[in-house]
Amino acid sequence: MTAPQSSASFNPAREDFLAQMLHGLEASQHVHVLRTDQGTAVIDADHRPGSRVAVISGGGSGHEPAHAGFVGQGMLSAAVPGDIFSSPPVSAVLQAIRAVTGDAGCVLVIKNYTGDRLNFGLAAERARAEGYTVETVLIADDVALPDVAQRRGLAGTVLIHKLAGHLAWEGVSAAEIAQRAQRVAERLRTIGLALEPAHVPGEADQAEEKPAHPGPAGGAAPEAVARHAELGLGIHNEPGAHNVVVTSAAGAIEDVLAGLQLDAPRDASSTEAAGSGGSEADQQLVVMLNDLGGCSAQEGLILAGALAEQVGTHRISRFLGPSRFMTSLDMHGFSVTVAPADAELIAALDTPTLAPGWRTPTVPGAGLSASAEAIAPSTAAEASAAEVPATAEGRIEEAVLAACRALVAETGPLDELDRRTGDGDAGTTFSAGARTVIDAIDQGHLGFSDPRAALGAVAGLLESRMGGSSGVLLAILCAAAAHDLAQDSAHAEWASALGAGIEAVGFHGGAAEGDRTMLDALIPAHRALQQGASLRAAAQAARDGANATADLTARAGRSAYVPAEAQSGVQDAGAVAVAVFFEALAGQLE
Amino acid sequence: MTAPQSSASFNPAREDFLAQMLHGLEASQHVHVLRTDQGTAVIDADHRPGSRVAVISGGGSGHEPAHAGFVGQGMLSAAVPGDIFSSPPVSAVLQAIRAVTGDAGCVLVIKNYTGDRLNFGLAAERARAEGYTVETVLIADDVALPDVAQRRGLAGTVLIHKLAGHLAWEGVSAAEIAQRAQRVAERLRTIGLALEPAHVPGEADQAEEKPAHPGPAGGAAPEAVARHAELGLGIHNEPGAHNVVVTSAAGAIEDVLAGLQLDAPRDASSTEAAGSGGSEADQQLVVMLNDLGGCSAQEGLILAGALAEQVGTHRISRFLGPSRFMTSLDMHGFSVTVAPADAELIAALDTPTLAPGWRTPTVPGAGLSASAEAIAPSTAAEASAAEVPATAEGRIEEAVLAACRALVAETGPLDELDRRTGDGDAGTTFSAGARTVIDAIDQGHLGFSDPRAALGAVAGLLESRMGGSSGVLLAILCAAAAHDLAQDSAHAEWASALGAGIEAVGFHGGAAEGDRTMLDALIPAHRALQQGASLRAAAQAARDGANATADLTARAGRSAYVPAEAQSGVQDAGAVAVAVFFEALAGQLE
Repeated sequence: MTAPQSSASFNPAREDFLAQMLHGLEASQHVHVLRTDQGTAVIDADHRPGSRVAVISGGGSGHEPAHAGFVGQGMLSAAVPGDIFSSPPVSAVLQAIRAVTGDAGCVLVIKNYTGDRLNFGLAAERARAEGYTVETVLIADDVALPDVAQRRGLAGTVLIHKLAGHLAWEGVSAAEIAQRAQRVAERLRTIGLALEPAHVPGEADQAEEKPAHPGPAGGAAPEAVARHAELGLGIHNEPGAHNVVVTSAAGAIEDVLAGLQLDAPRDASSTEAAGSGGSEADQQLVVMLNDLGGCSAQEGLILAGALAEQVGTHRISRFLGPSRFMTSLDMHGFSVTVAPADAELIAALDTPTLAPGWRTPTVPGAGLSASAEAIAPSTAAEASAAEVPATAEGRIEEAVLAACRALVAETGPLDELDRRTGDGDAGTTFSAGARTVIDAIDQGHLGFSDPRAALGAVAGLLESRMGGSSGVLLAILCAAAAHDLAQDSAHAEWASALGAGIEAVGFHGGAAEGDRTMLDALIPAHRALQQGASLRAAAQAARDGANATADLTARAGRSAYVPAEAQSGVQDAGAVAVAVFFEALAGQLE
Repeated sequence: MTAPQSSASFNPAREDFLAQMLHGLEASQHVHVLRTDQGTAVIDADHRPGSRVAVISGGGSGHEPAHAGFVGQGMLSAAVPGDIFSSPPVSAVLQAIRAVTGDAGCVLVIKNYTGDRLNFGLAAERARAEGYTVETVLIADDVALPDVAQRRGLAGTVLIHKLAGHLAWEGVSAAEIAQRAQRVAERLRTIGLALEPAHVPGEADQAEEKPAHPGPAGGAAPEAVARHAELGLGIHNEPGAHNVVVTSAAGAIEDVLAGLQLDAPRDASSTEAAGSGGSEADQQLVVMLNDLGGCSAQEGLILAGALAEQVGTHRISRFLGPSRFMTSLDMHGFSVTVAPADAELIAALDTPTLAPGWRTPTVPGAGLSASAEAIAPSTAAEASAAEVPATAEGRIEEAVLAACRALVAETGPLDELDRRTGDGDAGTTFSAGARTVIDAIDQGHLGFSDPRAALGAVAGLLESRMGGSSGVLLAILCAAAAHDLAQDSAHAEWASALGAGIEAVGFHGGAAEGDRTMLDALIPAHRALQQGASLRAAAQAARDGANATADLTARAGRSAYVPAEAQSGVQDAGAVAVAVFFEALAGQLE
C-alpha cells in the first residue's frame, strides 16, 4: 500500500491517483471505464453509437467532476481523462471517438490549452481520415488576462457540455451543434479567485506567501484579518492577473465582478448578432458559481448570496451552483461564469440530465414571489392562549399558586442537591418557572376556567421564561396534557392528562422510569391517581419515588455524565421538585 | 463590512453566518425563507398545505446541505435552521409546522440530540394542541460509541428525509410514514472519520495535535506519512471513539467498515423482522459516502473506489455519493452509512426529487455489465495503415528519404536557432520524426503506392515517435492531408492536400500566417503550388517565408513567452525546417 503523498489528505501517490479515481467513478456513476493500451475513456453506459450525435470532452484530471462527472444522457457521451493537469494522449481520444460515434458523428468540446487543442485536434483529424464525422468546439472563457493571445478554457466549458449534449439528444446535426455551441461559447466569461493554491499530489506545496503581482487592486491597505487572494487565476495553479486583498465574501465577489465587466459594452460581433448596440446592464444573464475545490458548503452559500445580490436578482435569468463544476483539486477559491441568457442556452440548462455532476439551475427570487402570499402562518392560536379567565371559586388557582410558592421556597435546597450531580441550577430553574406562573395568575392573565387553554398557556410561559431542558420538558408535559384534556373539555380528566404529559416527556426526552429523572416522581404519582388514590396519596407516591432516586444511576439528562459514585445517596433534584409541587397542591386542595 | 473571523475562509463573523447563508439559499434554491420574530424556516416554494403530508426537519446550521438543501418536491416541505451547531427554537419549529401543514398532517424528522428532541418535541406537542396531526421520527444512526445511552443522528438522516418525502408525495398517511420511516431508521448505521476538525466561525481552532483517546486501533506504529485520524466522531467536533493511524484512503475505509461490522449478526429485532437468523454477509446494502465538508472531489472519488471494493460491488444495491449530504462545516473527513436494501427504501431513493442536495443513487458495476460488449472499439483502421507498399518506380519514396535525411543533417543548426528563442530542441525533434520515417521506408513498412494510407501512416508515426507540439502538429498536417486525398484517391492532388493540412494545423494550433511558426514557410509554399509554380519555386517561397520570420514576433507556440528583442533577427526553427524539407524534396523530384 502506497502511503499518501500529501500530509493532509486521503490522496494516494501521484502514480495511483487517476486509477483510484476511476475506480470511484465506476462505483458511483453509471459509466463504463474503457482501459486499453490506447488509453482510458469514461463512457456513458447507456450510450450506443447511432443516429444521435456523440458529445465528447476531456482533458487533464484534477478538475472533477469535469469531465467524467458530466458523462450521462443529455450531456457527454464520453470523457477522456489525462493524468493530473495533463492532456490525454491522442490515441485515447481517438479510441473514445471510435467507441461512441455512429453515423451522426461526434462533437469534441475542447478547452483552449495547447495540449488539449493539439491532442484532440489530431484525434479529430485521424478520425475524419477514418471516415467519422467530427466537429470541434473550442472553449476560451477566461477573461482575466486581456492581453493574452490564447484565453484559457475554464468552468464555462461545462455550460457548453450541457448545451451540446442537449442539442445532440434533440437530434440536431453535428455541424449545427458545433456552430451553435461555438457561438454561445464565445460569449462566456469566467474569472476565478482563490485564497490558497491547489495541493498537487507528488509536488511540493507552493509557499503560503504568494509572490506579489503588480496590479490595480493591490493598493488596499491590508488589515489584520485581510487575506491575500489571487484574482483571475487558472485551474492549474497558474498565477493570476494580480493579487487582491479579501476581507469578506462580498469583497471577493466585488473583485471578480469588476473583472467580468458586466456593464461594459459588448464586443462588436456579439452586438451585431443581437442587433443592439446597448450595454448589458439591462440584459438577463446566466450566472454560475463554481467551487474550485476547497470551499465548504457553507462558504459556497455565502458567496452565492453575495453574488446574487451584487449582480442583481432581477438580472439573473438562471443561477447555477454553488457547486463544484470544474475544480483545481482542493484549491480554496471559486470562479464566476456569466453568459447572456440566450433562449436556446436556457432551454438546454433547464432540461434534466442523468449526468451526476450537473446541477439544475434556479430562477433567483422565484421562491419569494411564488410563496409570499401562500405562507402566512397563523398566530391566532397564541393570541387565544394569552388570557384565560379564572374559575369562579378560584380554588384551582389558589392551589397552583401554593404549589409554585413551595417550589420558590425550595430554591436553595434543590440547587444544593443539583450541585452534587449536575450544574447546581435546578432550584433556580424551577423557581423561575414557578415565579412566571405566579405572576401570570396574580396579574389576572392566567386562570383555570378552561383547563385546556390554561395548560397551553402554562406551556408557553415555561418554554419562553423558564429555560433549560427542564423548562422545555415541563412545557412538553403541559402541552401534551392540554391536548389530552381537549378531548373532553367538559370534564377535566386530570389523571388522564397527566398520563399523556408523562408519556410525551418520556418520548421526547428519551427517558424512562428508573433513569433518575423527574419521571421517577411523576410516574408513581400518576399511577396512584389512576388507581383512584387521593391527591395526598399521589403526593406521597411522588415523594417516595424522589427518595428512591438516591439509589439510582442516571441514564438520561446531564447527570448521565457524572460518575455513579457521585450520585449515590443523592436524590434527583427534578424528582424532588415534583414531590414538593404535589405535596403543596394536595395540602391546598384536600 | 465585518471581516471574516477565520483566517482561511470566506466565512463572515459568526453573528452574520446564518443570515448570509440564507441569502445564498434564496439565490440558489427554489425556496421561500420565512423570517419572523418566531424564527426562521426554509420552505419549498411550491409546497402548499393540503392533502399530502408535510415532511419537516431541521437542526443546527453548519451541516449544509442538511437540512435546507433537501427542501424540494419529493423530500422536505420545510427545514428549520438553528444557529451554528444549535437547535432551532421551539417557536421556529412551530411556525414551520403551521406554514406547511394541512389536513394530512406532518412528520418531523428529528436527529437524536437533546436540544433537537426537546425543541421539536415541544413544537410537536404544541401543534397537536392546536389541532394539527403531527408525527415524529427519531434518527440515531451513529454506531461508533456502542456504550452511549443515546446514539447520535448523523448522515443517515438524509435517507429518511428521502424516504419520508417520497411516501408523502405518494399520498401515504402521516402515521404510516412515521412508522415505516422509523423502522428503516432503526436499521441505519453510520460511522465517520476525520483528519481535521471543523473550523467553527468565531471559535479558536482546535489544536492540530489531538488528544489521544485510548482505543484498540491506537496501537499501529505511526509512519512518517501516517496521519492521526479520529474515528467515530460526531458532526459538532465531539471527540471520536478513538484515534487511528491513516496511511491511505483504503486504510481509512477499512477502519470505518470495521466499526460498522457489516458481517456481524443482526440485532434481534431486525432478525425477527426479516424472518432470518443469518448474517448480513449475503444481504444487499444501501451504501452512502458522505463528505463531512473538507474532502476534495478527487478524494471523494478515491474513497468511493475503496469503499465499493471493500464492501464488495455485488453486495451494494445502491451507492450514494461521494457527496456532501451532512457536513460539519469544513471538517476534513467522511462518513459511511449502510442500511439493508429494503425494497421500499430503494424505491424511494430511486425516485427523482427537486431537492438540490440530493444525489441519484447508482448501481455499482451496472456500467460494466451493460457496456462490456457494446463498447469494443475497432482497431482495424490502425492495422490497415501498418503496411503500405512502395510505388513501382520508388520515386516518391526516394524524395521523402532525401527530405528526411536533409532534416537529420540540419539537426545542429536548427537546435541552435531554437536555443535563441525556445528550449533548443527543434532540430532534435524534427530529426527524430525524420528518422522514424526513414526507418519505416528502409524497412519496407512505408511506401506511397496509396498516398492516403501513406500519409495516415506517417501521421501515426509522427504522433507516437516524434514528440513535442511539433510532432502533433505535423501529424495533424499529415492526417488532414490524408483525409483530403481520400476524396479522390485515383489522382493524388498534393497541393490541395497540403492546403487541407495547413488549414488543420492553423485551426487546431491556433496560429495564422505571421505568428512566427512553421506556417510562415508552409503557407507561401502552398500558395505557390496552387498558382501552378514548380516544386522548386514552392521551396523557394518556403525559404523566403522562413527568412522573413526573423522580423516577426511570436504570437503562438512557446516563443510567444520570449521577449520580442530576443527573437529579433532569429529565424523560426520550424519554418526553416519546412524550407529544408521542401528544398530537398524539389532537388530529388525536379
